[in-house]
Amino acid sequence: MNAFRSIEFLDEGIVRMLDQRKLPHETVYNDYENYTEVAQAITDMVIRGAPAIGAAAAYGMALTAHRSKATDAESLRAELATASDVLAASRPTAVNLFWALDRMNKGIANSSLDSVSALQKATLTEAHAIAEEDVAINKAIGMNALSLIPDKATIIHHCNTGSLATVDYGTALGVIRTAHEQGKEILALLDETRPRLQGGRLSAYELKEQGVPFKVIVDGASGHFMRTLGVDLCVVGTDRVAANGDVANKIGTYNLAVVAHENGVPFYVAAPTTTIDMATKHGDDIEIEERPATEVTTVGNWQITPDGVDVGNPAFDVTPAKYITAIITEKGLVYPPFEENLAKLMGKE
Amino acid sequence: MNAFRSIEFLDEGIVRMLDQRKLPHETVYNDYENYTEVAQAITDMVIRGAPAIGAAAAYGMALTAHRSKATDAESLRAELATASDVLAASRPTAVNLFWALDRMNKGIANSSLDSVSALQKATLTEAHAIAEEDVAINKAIGMNALSLIPDKATIIHHCNTGSLATVDYGTALGVIRTAHEQGKEILALLDETRPRLQGGRLSAYELKEQGVPFKVIVDGASGHFMRTLGVDLCVVGTDRVAANGDVANKIGTYNLAVVAHENGVPFYVAAPTTTIDMATKHGDDIEIEERPATEVTTVGNWQITPDGVDVGNPAFDVTPAKYITAIITEKGLVYPPFEENLAKLMGKE
Repeated sequence: MNAFRSIEFLDEGIVRMLDQRKLPHETVYNDYENYTEVAQAITDMVIRGAPAIGAAAAYGMALTAHRSKATDAESLRAELATASDVLAASRPTAVNLFWALDRMNKGIANSSLDSVSALQKATLTEAHAIAEEDVAINKAIGMNALSLIPDKATIIHHCNTGSLATVDYGTALGVIRTAHEQGKEILALLDETRPRLQGGRLSAYELKEQGVPFKVIVDGASGHFMRTLGVDLCVVGTDRVAANGDVANKIGTYNLAVVAHENGVPFYVAAPTTTIDMATKHGDDIEIEERPATEVTTVGNWQITPDGVDVGNPAFDVTPAKYITAIITEKGLVYPPFEENLAKLMGKE
Repeated sequence: MNAFRSIEFLDEGIVRMLDQRKLPHETVYNDYENYTEVAQAITDMVIRGAPAIGAAAAYGMALTAHRSKATDAESLRAELATASDVLAASRPTAVNLFWALDRMNKGIANSSLDSVSALQKATLTEAHAIAEEDVAINKAIGMNALSLIPDKATIIHHCNTGSLATVDYGTALGVIRTAHEQGKEILALLDETRPRLQGGRLSAYELKEQGVPFKVIVDGASGHFMRTLGVDLCVVGTDRVAANGDVANKIGTYNLAVVAHENGVPFYVAAPTTTIDMATKHGDDIEIEERPATEVTTVGNWQITPDGVDVGNPAFDVTPAKYITAIITEKGLVYPPFEENLAKLMGKE
């Protein structure tokens, strides 16, 4: 496995996260002791990636129970309800955050948990389950994708969807990793993914550790490589899949998908079923987070632009279903028509 | 006019360039005293932009004549031939470089120039003419584009094609500038244009000086803004237009053009006729410069990636003619079929 895991819960009541803002140059772990700190860490992108922030929210709940001074179950439930609200407000787009909190809250609502200690034990067990399931799900996604990948393949990947974006292993980057581990000859072209450069910083870091051959490219170069080098497929992650198959993902995904479509390059979305949100009908119903201008105006300690310029900095975009060849889940591949086939997969039909 | 001009020739025999690598933070002028230095400045992108490097090459020739210790015209001609070869090797993609050298060499070949002083005078006159014509051409391009721009328009622009990319005024950014000066209500969305960030650094700097409203966006966000905000048109420059209407331009242009096409957003290329190369039949015949990896791995003094990663860094891409709505030249608008209409414009038919 990797030398790094994005998040852990320590027995003494600490949520420990690898500070991804400092990678690849510094490996720093931050310790958090209450849900406010965990929520802030999600907002500040100490941890990022849809599955990882779902696990972070779950551990934020377990931490709240662990550290609580409540003397009865009802007081603790009230405290946990506040924690859930604060954690839910940390970022708006990835549905895993809400999914994980919902799952935690359903467990907490179980009336047989009639003591503080029972609630403490139950929340930690559930948070660990969410984390462990995530790793297993990611490995299943990787195996399910194998049939889509030629034995020799050049693959474009956007953002970071590896160990760091999940609890461990990764979704779309896990697909690339599995293909490599299974002996396929892979060249990954990593979109650097402005503004936060998760591709150039984090995906490059992970693939280097794992020995997968790759090149870092600027986001604007993807089409050039499709036209001139030959690209076999694109694979990306997602923060939310709508019921009609539209996906929200890191800004730049839509451009990549359109250019892939125009070049006849298959475009795959690796998505644990926890990112499929049947309550969201269309992608354009998904709230797109606008993030601070400084993400665009500076890189590290270096200011790019003149002082005081206006910036548009949407963190995500929506890729309409028509540009997506298939969605790769832990339960199998989903092909168009997505509305029908996602409903079947999610047992809504 | 602007507070800056990309290049000047000083009477004492100096080519002075504004060092664009240091903008927008420092305004530094570099002085060059021979063609080797001028060629290196072009290679290092002290000056960049197709029209500007054409003028730089012309002034490099005039400088060579001015500083020559030759005592007869034939010796000076030999020296100028060497200078021309060195300058021509400074960058491969923009045709203006070769066009300007070709024009200078035709002048130099004139047998009535039978003395060193006659050649010195003729080369400087010709270089000045190239520079002054560039400014006039850019203004004509801006006026010719007016009919294409709604009175209230959101316009995406890629790279820098302003005063800094030309001798003065600009091509595609000149189109935006003219529309603003003529009273249209313009919002420019400036692709920051990785890797060298000419949009975030240089175009933002110019439009801020000129009071044109703008937002800087990452390159991957252009499609999101087309889908959600409404974009009226895109306008870009070019380093070379092939006879069939394909254009080479800064990496990222092809992605932008494809996404514009898919969204029904008109895509215009502002091109002085000096960038139209009837000798290049197809865009894919154009040599695409591969630039150093450090342009991708670092921004300013900040290293993005882990050490020692592989990078793909093509400086340009080719946008096939089918994605281009019209080419805006100083002689008028050129519409498809481009092969036929460019030939007419260039008097080859």
